[in-house]
Amino acid sequence: MMPCMAEHAKHKVVVVGGGFGGLYAARAMTNSALQVTLVDRRNFHLFQPLLYQVATGGLAPANIAAPLRNLLRQRARVLLAEVVDFDLAGRRVLLADGELPFDSLIVAAGSEFNYFGHDDWRSLAPGLKSIEDATEIRARLLTAFEMAERTADAAERRRWLTFIIAGGGATGVELAGALADLARYTMRQDFRAIDPSEARIILVEGRERLLTTFPEDLSAHTADTLRRLGVTIRTGTMVADVRPHEVVLKQGDRSETLPAETVLWTAGVRTAGVAGRLAQAAGAETDRMGRIVVQPDLTIAGHPNVFVAGDMAHLAPQGGEPLPGLAPVAMQQGQYVAQVIERRITGDPPPPPFHYHDRGNMAVIGRSAAVADLHWTHVWGFPAWLAWLFIHLLYLAQFQNRLLVLIQWAWNYVTRSRSARLITGEGRSGSEAERGRHRDTGRASAVAASAETP
Amino acid sequence: MMPCMAEHAKHKVVVVGGGFGGLYAARAMTNSALQVTLVDRRNFHLFQPLLYQVATGGLAPANIAAPLRNLLRQRARVLLAEVVDFDLAGRRVLLADGELPFDSLIVAAGSEFNYFGHDDWRSLAPGLKSIEDATEIRARLLTAFEMAERTADAAERRRWLTFIIAGGGATGVELAGALADLARYTMRQDFRAIDPSEARIILVEGRERLLTTFPEDLSAHTADTLRRLGVTIRTGTMVADVRPHEVVLKQGDRSETLPAETVLWTAGVRTAGVAGRLAQAAGAETDRMGRIVVQPDLTIAGHPNVFVAGDMAHLAPQGGEPLPGLAPVAMQQGQYVAQVIERRITGDPPPPPFHYHDRGNMAVIGRSAAVADLHWTHVWGFPAWLAWLFIHLLYLAQFQNRLLVLIQWAWNYVTRSRSARLITGEGRSGSEAERGRHRDTGRASAVAASAETP
Repeated sequence: MMPCMAEHAKHKVVVVGGGFGGLYAARAMTNSALQVTLVDRRNFHLFQPLLYQVATGGLAPANIAAPLRNLLRQRARVLLAEVVDFDLAGRRVLLADGELPFDSLIVAAGSEFNYFGHDDWRSLAPGLKSIEDATEIRARLLTAFEMAERTADAAERRRWLTFIIAGGGATGVELAGALADLARYTMRQDFRAIDPSEARIILVEGRERLLTTFPEDLSAHTADTLRRLGVTIRTGTMVADVRPHEVVLKQGDRSETLPAETVLWTAGVRTAGVAGRLAQAAGAETDRMGRIVVQPDLTIAGHPNVFVAGDMAHLAPQGGEPLPGLAPVAMQQGQYVAQVIERRITGDPPPPPFHYHDRGNMAVIGRSAAVADLHWTHVWGFPAWLAWLFIHLLYLAQFQNRLLVLIQWAWNYVTRSRSARLITGEGRSGSEAERGRHRDTGRASAVAASAETP
Repeated sequence: MMPCMAEHAKHKVVVVGGGFGGLYAARAMTNSALQVTLVDRRNFHLFQPLLYQVATGGLAPANIAAPLRNLLRQRARVLLAEVVDFDLAGRRVLLADGELPFDSLIVAAGSEFNYFGHDDWRSLAPGLKSIEDATEIRARLLTAFEMAERTADAAERRRWLTFIIAGGGATGVELAGALADLARYTMRQDFRAIDPSEARIILVEGRERLLTTFPEDLSAHTADTLRRLGVTIRTGTMVADVRPHEVVLKQGDRSETLPAETVLWTAGVRTAGVAGRLAQAAGAETDRMGRIVVQPDLTIAGHPNVFVAGDMAHLAPQGGEPLPGLAPVAMQQGQYVAQVIERRITGDPPPPPFHYHDRGNMAVIGRSAAVADLHWTHVWGFPAWLAWLFIHLLYLAQFQNRLLVLIQWAWNYVTRSRSARLITGEGRSGSEAERGRHRDTGRASAVAASAETP
């Protein structure tokens, strides 16, 4: 084990999480005195901003994911493992199947969707965070049209063709736009009994407008564009209950029960379990989303060698709003932490407190429509979409993916086709349990259908 | 329901299965007096000959699959349903959730891997028939390297780096070649503790040579090429047992136990359950692989309106060997059956008995190596690979896929990269049960590892 002996003298950095924060931290540490290990449960980095494209059949999972080993080849050791706890005094990360010693620790384990105490809704109304979520949602969306095609009962068909998206943030808007595009254009010719463009897509947002992190004029543009695509927008409305076959919406005092088979959840996020463990181990303060309150240099108070980056960090510049959970924030924080650690190693003075260089905020609405808040100007429509396309391609981690995604998009744009429309996972026990209610309903209805349709 | 009334007068053709046989039958029936319905459990056609590329991370599932509704848009109704039985006297196909009346029936439900009575091996040694199989195998292959990287125990590392492929037919050869390529070139730089090129890939074939359906000189070329890629070839050897952590091989009287964590099964096929149901319903003769013995016009004796095509059909021309289960056979049979049915409708005389136009047989061995038996000549090496590439791209069902696959291949060829190296499905109950033994082993070993590696 000679090489191991030689590395004992190095400063061990453990990075938890291969998302934007962790990946950009690991890539930015180039000092040879550092021995960097990145731990993730998955073997790939996921370009989450494009996950909604997988969920709506526009891109394949491999288009938006790249193996971490590939991305970090010479820079860091990659370990496929599950982090279960932290022993900060002993400077160890505890894994489900072992442990990892560290001198400096960077935790960037991201976030998950927040069901606000209704975790039982999760199986009925999946969120969109992982590749599996995306293929599950894709299967549900496509299956809903198939079931609608098979039933002869008008009420049931309407239920299958009703799609409710909870949450009018960027993910909700993007899903609603892409789903409208899928139903109105891509699949228009595919069915016999139904017209997919009859699909009712209902976007539900608790606050008074969509995209509340954007300026009001862009929210209004977004709502207009979605309405032109046939999306029904219900602002000021809460999802009060999600039950099999129906959803209860609440607007002020009025509540309304909507029959619907497909509900998607994009309303609010919270940190994952790892954040809670770390907060406990460090005695750190957390906010109501579970984010860890960090110092201006992204360390945890009292633990100068423990850093938090990305969605897990609560950092409010000059007493303002905490930074949002966006990919650029996580990237810049990852790079900043790498800089802090490297300067400590080289004995250079620490960098100034972390400052987020906010170059703007964008959301895509559908084919050739987007909104972009670049602070010095607001852009919408086709120019915003072009800008969005350009920036996302630029950031896509691997050159090959970038090229393939570009071609796939160009093709989709010209033909309105979506080639990745596969219903996978069926026949395996995995998603079957979750899809149980869909399939049972389908069965009952299809028996009725077969007697009537030729 | 006016359109349904009008269609009542039409001749109803039900096609069971959206593989090559069913798809080509449905596409070839253009007579407007026919009402064609294609039934499949999945919503996509799968280009099975390239499935091994998905299993080894070279292509994404969506690259080799296309939505059936898209492929058949104007030609046939597509029904997503599971066929459970046939009522031939009542001219009905019985679905899990309904039934379908027919005037003519085409059954082309394909085949599955044959474990020759050892179905308990299935979870330990998965076959390669579906998209889920391919992503499961991809996850197992990639996880094995990850586990080898983590263990400090030499024997265990060796076990994780030992890959046994049962069956030296085209699928086994293709998997072995692609896996060798993945280990020796693609992942060479990706690990720290292990050298992936140390992986032992053992291809086990019961008969005396690989690719027994090819001429002997091409078998010899194949074996040479695989050996140069580092594959160990064990002909005249049977898999006697598959157990957790080991495989028992038997050569003549000698038996040998090989520690190995990853076993893939490509040895022999048999028909799926639907074939048995149809044979019983029709009182038809089957061979030992479960294939239904058909008349020269691909009907079942005594049932002139029931056709069988593709892997499910046993048709032996002039008392020779039955036609092999290859994509071109299925395609030609599908088209032939369509012709028979159309001629009956138009009152034209039936076509001559089905004749398979055998344009040759190919197998790919690895990067830039293949063998092709074109009957009038034998080709191997790079020219055969180019021919293989050309023909497979030509047949890929959708133009978009063809272009994307071509680019992905060109890229892989130049860089030896494989971008679709994702371990997915983890964290879901589905494949977790099947992967249980892998993960348990991993856990035990990694605890040991963490104490020793820095």
